[in-house]
Amino acid sequence: MKQAGSHTQAVNPVNNAAAADANLQHAALIALDWGTTSLRAYLYDAAGDVLATRASTDGIMNLPRSAEQGGFDAAFEDACGAWLEQAPAVPVIAAGMVGSAQGWVEAPYVDAPANADALVAGIVRVKAACGATLHIVPGVLQRGDLPNVMRGEETQIFGALGQDTSAVDSGKRALIGLPGTHAKWAVVQAGRIERFHTFMTGEVFAALRQHTILGRTMVTPDRPDTGAFLRGVKIARDKGQAGMLATVFSARTLGLTGQLSREQQPDYLSGLLIGHELAGLEAVLTQQQNSLAGQHLRLIGNEALCERYRVALTQFGCTHAELVKHATERGLWRVATQAGLVNPAAQTAHAG
Amino acid sequence: MKQAGSHTQAVNPVNNAAAADANLQHAALIALDWGTTSLRAYLYDAAGDVLATRASTDGIMNLPRSAEQGGFDAAFEDACGAWLEQAPAVPVIAAGMVGSAQGWVEAPYVDAPANADALVAGIVRVKAACGATLHIVPGVLQRGDLPNVMRGEETQIFGALGQDTSAVDSGKRALIGLPGTHAKWAVVQAGRIERFHTFMTGEVFAALRQHTILGRTMVTPDRPDTGAFLRGVKIARDKGQAGMLATVFSARTLGLTGQLSREQQPDYLSGLLIGHELAGLEAVLTQQQNSLAGQHLRLIGNEALCERYRVALTQFGCTHAELVKHATERGLWRVATQAGLVNPAAQTAHAG
Repeated sequence: MKQAGSHTQAVNPVNNAAAADANLQHAALIALDWGTTSLRAYLYDAAGDVLATRASTDGIMNLPRSAEQGGFDAAFEDACGAWLEQAPAVPVIAAGMVGSAQGWVEAPYVDAPANADALVAGIVRVKAACGATLHIVPGVLQRGDLPNVMRGEETQIFGALGQDTSAVDSGKRALIGLPGTHAKWAVVQAGRIERFHTFMTGEVFAALRQHTILGRTMVTPDRPDTGAFLRGVKIARDKGQAGMLATVFSARTLGLTGQLSREQQPDYLSGLLIGHELAGLEAVLTQQQNSLAGQHLRLIGNEALCERYRVALTQFGCTHAELVKHATERGLWRVATQAGLVNPAAQTAHAG
Repeated sequence: MKQAGSHTQAVNPVNNAAAADANLQHAALIALDWGTTSLRAYLYDAAGDVLATRASTDGIMNLPRSAEQGGFDAAFEDACGAWLEQAPAVPVIAAGMVGSAQGWVEAPYVDAPANADALVAGIVRVKAACGATLHIVPGVLQRGDLPNVMRGEETQIFGALGQDTSAVDSGKRALIGLPGTHAKWAVVQAGRIERFHTFMTGEVFAALRQHTILGRTMVTPDRPDTGAFLRGVKIARDKGQAGMLATVFSARTLGLTGQLSREQQPDYLSGLLIGHELAGLEAVLTQQQNSLAGQHLRLIGNEALCERYRVALTQFGCTHAELVKHATERGLWRVATQAGLVNPAAQTAHAG
């Protein structure tokens, strides 16, 4: 459900006036993760450390007023106005749906395979009413019979790559998963997003639960039921030949036949869908002479959801799935650095 | 959308008072197809010909008043009261959700494999306030890791079998498809429902279209776009390895990249889902040393929807898919006959 209003709130204890004043002397970059339903703003020092964070519900489909009436400016001012007042020269970068056709300005997709240089070359600038220039990172498009697009995830992926140049930035092929509404799985090699796949797992789960007969018998359990979840994963893996349209009906029929309680049905359905996602991913990896089994892969996203995926991945022989934290703010910093918006080596230039 | 009220309407021109009076002298059976959102009543003569039909929106989840307040009696009286007043001794049979746990009385599922005798043995009776006894046909349950249930379709299947005893009632294995909200595919042999599968294709399509991002860019075309539909079927068949959770996103990305118009997107998505259903069916048939290719199969259901399936089936090598009409009323008649409620040979006994 869409929230009735939108408001900015501090999510970081350092983000009070006194601390912010002190921090702003060291401000080197403002970065925005601006999606459909939310806006997160990060203030960095010249070392790339986050000094302050602000979060609001001013996503591009949830602006405080319409785009024609300056909604983007209003949301930006609300999130970053106080910072910019004291540090007006700080560069600003943004990633996510803000660069879509429905965003502030469209930053056309760059084609996969895409490395950080390609993202930088695709940056589009927009001037805010307050005088600041936003540098908007483009999304990535993979062409084909089943085209794929991402906006925001490309920046998170480069954030995850930036963490460990030895394993992932090398020539070795790496797999990065981004569970969520539209889950992404990207194959990365030599610092490039080679190809990726989208699974509408999160959104389909919500639609099935809220708008089909399956939800009618479901009761949310007090705590997640890992047994029911794993049962769903295994059914999708071992008995999923008929496809998801067939297996999901079992959430109802196992209930009708007394084999699955109402409280178990949500986690069972979640396991079924994530199991079908991973089985589908395994099928396309197999075509690429690759496999989930034995992979050392990385997950980016909500911790509880990534934990579900980690558990499900073990059922596909993948026991090394590492959760990458702070991929978004690291990625924004990395792209800004690559674009020359900040120079991490010249900290003193910014510290005064 | 649920209709605000419920009302009974005549759908057959013979169903006016004068014609009904004349017909009722020959009445031999009342049969009800009583589902979740609708109730259809058929009046037969002793030859099994339908004399009159009535239809209402008084499905078991849409009764004129609650079940506790006599909602089932009220709906039954509304549909059949006029008939029963003049022919109170006419037997009554009913199939569908009226026999579910939420129905008038529960008629427990009979196990697959199930023939017409098994259905008859599972009939449960309930006495209506008006004095009539309803004979409620049970549904069929197939046990297993992915249990399957049907209620109403079993009667339609026997209706389709009754049509042609040479081809389908023989020992030859036959495949019958019932497209719809929860599409069913049944393997029938020697007059028995051997096994069946359920695909939530219709309900998932509606949920995706109405409650996910995919619907936002869709515009209903003036007429169905068979080209877009077939494109979806072929993608599911040839490029569907990643599964439906992945392929459906292409309804959006093909739009974003200018390869699929807004008007084409609904039929493309329909083709994708029906294509995944048939690919999944083909996978389970293969496990049973069977195949869609070369099948002479039958379809029961809405004509326009069955036509979609017929077109899609040709993409799987199945060019003989015959639409069976009036399967519901034929099936109800057949089960009633088998149960001894009517005796087609003794027409004169009922004609007076």
